[in-house]
Amino acid sequence: MEKKIEISMLCGFYGKLLTKKQFEFLNDYYNNDYSLSEIAENNNITRQAVRDIIKKGEKKLFEYEEKLLFMKKTLTQEQKIQSVLKELTKIQQNSSDKKIEHILDSIRKELNCLV
Amino acid sequence: MEKKIEISMLCGFYGKLLTKKQFEFLNDYYNNDYSLSEIAENNNITRQAVRDIIKKGEKKLFEYEEKLLFMKKTLTQEQKIQSVLKELTKIQQNSSDKKIEHILDSIRKELNCLV
Repeated sequence: MEKKIEISMLCGFYGKLLTKKQFEFLNDYYNNDYSLSEIAENNNITRQAVRDIIKKGEKKLFEYEEKLLFMKKTLTQEQKIQSVLKELTKIQQNSSDKKIEHILDSIRKELNCLV
Repeated sequence: MEKKIEISMLCGFYGKLLTKKQFEFLNDYYNNDYSLSEIAENNNITRQAVRDIIKKGEKKLFEYEEKLLFMKKTLTQEQKIQSVLKELTKIQQNSSDKKIEHILDSIRKELNCLV
């Protein structure tokens, strides 16, 4: 997975465990595409200070994931659900029963909330 | 949810973020049914010290859940999957097609890994 996407996702999972500044800078840098210099200027601190805070935040995110594995578990789960959604399409292709179609719709709705 | 079960579950989610002692004592108290006095005796410390460590660990677990909501999300997800599994049974009851039965088995296997 590309680093930018990975950190952005990790922020979604564990961002609330970071300090306000760490979260803010990571969000500006990885989600809002600000440069280090822009963040530095907006916050009246040096580029190096921004870099240090971002690095520290990243380190914490990776440590949380290493311990808790929530992102890994969620991605695996989403894959399984996508695979189930494909299997449901196969059932639909093998049936013309309206009742079954109706049940399939209801299952899809439930599963789509999980991905 | 009963407090004992709740803390035991929270330990499963966030236990790795506790100190070794917090995790050990919470596990002894809530999962292995040791009393505070027994844990104190086994660790050569006072009953009050054990109590303090357990209380501090519990507080941290609740704080993590308040911020991250992984237990709440997991329980909601498990409910949805249980409901999907019930819906699958309805499809089976409305079909005698062997192909569909086979697909249903495969879906059940995928979903049972998630609960």
